[in-house]
Amino acid sequence: MPHAVGVDVGGTKMLGVLIDTDAPTEVLSAEKVPTPRGTDAVLDALTVLVSSLDSGPGVPVGLGVPGLVDRDDRFRYGPNLPDVEDVALGSVLGGRLGRRVVADNDGTCATIAEFRAGAGAGCADGVLLTIGTGIGSGIVVDGRVRHGANGFAGEPGHMVVDRNGPLCPCGRRGCWERFASGSGLGRLGRDAAVAGRLVDSVRRAGGETEAVRGEHVVSSARAGDTDAGLVLDEFAWWLAAGIANLIDLLDPSIVVLGGGVMEAADVLLDRVRSAVPPQVLGAPHRPEVEVVAAGLGERAGAIGAALLAGAGGD
Amino acid sequence: MPHAVGVDVGGTKMLGVLIDTDAPTEVLSAEKVPTPRGTDAVLDALTVLVSSLDSGPGVPVGLGVPGLVDRDDRFRYGPNLPDVEDVALGSVLGGRLGRRVVADNDGTCATIAEFRAGAGAGCADGVLLTIGTGIGSGIVVDGRVRHGANGFAGEPGHMVVDRNGPLCPCGRRGCWERFASGSGLGRLGRDAAVAGRLVDSVRRAGGETEAVRGEHVVSSARAGDTDAGLVLDEFAWWLAAGIANLIDLLDPSIVVLGGGVMEAADVLLDRVRSAVPPQVLGAPHRPEVEVVAAGLGERAGAIGAALLAGAGGD
Repeated sequence: MPHAVGVDVGGTKMLGVLIDTDAPTEVLSAEKVPTPRGTDAVLDALTVLVSSLDSGPGVPVGLGVPGLVDRDDRFRYGPNLPDVEDVALGSVLGGRLGRRVVADNDGTCATIAEFRAGAGAGCADGVLLTIGTGIGSGIVVDGRVRHGANGFAGEPGHMVVDRNGPLCPCGRRGCWERFASGSGLGRLGRDAAVAGRLVDSVRRAGGETEAVRGEHVVSSARAGDTDAGLVLDEFAWWLAAGIANLIDLLDPSIVVLGGGVMEAADVLLDRVRSAVPPQVLGAPHRPEVEVVAAGLGERAGAIGAALLAGAGGD
Repeated sequence: MPHAVGVDVGGTKMLGVLIDTDAPTEVLSAEKVPTPRGTDAVLDALTVLVSSLDSGPGVPVGLGVPGLVDRDDRFRYGPNLPDVEDVALGSVLGGRLGRRVVADNDGTCATIAEFRAGAGAGCADGVLLTIGTGIGSGIVVDGRVRHGANGFAGEPGHMVVDRNGPLCPCGRRGCWERFASGSGLGRLGRDAAVAGRLVDSVRRAGGETEAVRGEHVVSSARAGDTDAGLVLDEFAWWLAAGIANLIDLLDPSIVVLGGGVMEAADVLLDRVRSAVPPQVLGAPHRPEVEVVAAGLGERAGAIGAALLAGAGGD
């Protein structure tokens, strides 16, 4: 029973789990705390969180963090952890805790979990996308999660897909996650509402067009509202456009979709599945790529971080 | 001295080489013939070409072809070989010649050559782009050229980068190669000419705005023409936009640029190098990616095909 602790460090909350790495989906204990601001406060909160999750000092710890993590476990940069920059998370927290601590990108950690024990298990070539406020990702090539030259691989959220599109906080225009993330869905909804459509969703948002968010569109679509269905069609088209880009480049056999937006899988997944093949190069001449919902839910990142720590890397 | 024959099968011509795989850049003999139309005619021409290149029946043959080639050497589909479809090139030609014949995508073959013996030698994570009529490519991850689940990996030319952009023969709108290929450069030039700019290039094109091609823009830029320089700036921006997408996703240490358009490297390469970093996610927090010209010229694809045959795959 090799135990390991994993923590998914999000922009607003941190989710920690203790697992047996031989049975990673049976979480032994879990705890969620708010993410404080500033490097020292984050390290303090992680110290408390890890200590509360396990009793043995030798248990290794993995951290999944939202941003660029280099191959020396150094967190370089991430717009969703704005007050934390350029800190060797693994060795600093390892020193405090007196045990092995490793860090990696949160999308990479979720990919490790989903392709070891979730929806991608057994697939040698695949992509995981976590569709939340932004788009996280990890890529599996020839059986392994890949990190690239510096550890930064797997950030398709900032692919430009519309050069004249809306400005992105990253500085470019028309990045994929401006359209195909949870915030992208909200924006598509507000655009429709301002244009006078989407009456049902505006009502759900308290009558304010500017208050329409993705969940209002999803609720309306579930209730059978045609306008909301059209917004979801548009959203699914954007999601599929980027997925097709990834298929052209990486030729995966499976694309696993996780993240908060996939709570709407019941009204979204079939739309995405229909929108992908027409956009893939030479689609009639190649097998269709499976597009499936993630299997481990919101704990995928934390479980993957624990697997990373327990296995000595992937 | 293990010999191997490689043939780069292009849409208009086929270039064959005989090499010693221990010294692949010293081509022992080479021959170029037109590409005929139709599967049988192509196989006939390949039979003659290969026989004229070597005297020994045991010498293995590699083919680089423009399109989707599956892991069983079957050519599935390629818009630049419109009359050839769904043929097991390796085994059919191998049966005719009585020797081992393997086939792979032409961009993949060029990547094998450039990362074994050209500009990417020694790099474990990189991308090769051949900028010609379209964009060919291959990707190197953790030291190996990668093929994906079916053998189709490495087709970034059809990434959508401008959803409202011009129609592509592939059926999508705004594919990267509509902007960042040789034909893309010609289109940017004609757009500028029609708008009344680019007088020098129009003169070089015989006074017809619609006759402006990429080489006229390049010649004008070399002569110091400001308008042509601005078109090259725009072209370099598009090329860099897609390169930045690839860097975000794959985190290579090097991007190697080959293909006919790189004959204009003297006026193009520095422009591309300047345009890449501002478009890469978190650029101030990561090493700059090297962008270099290919080292093996137009023979890269044929040399790589020969290496593939000689080495028993990559």
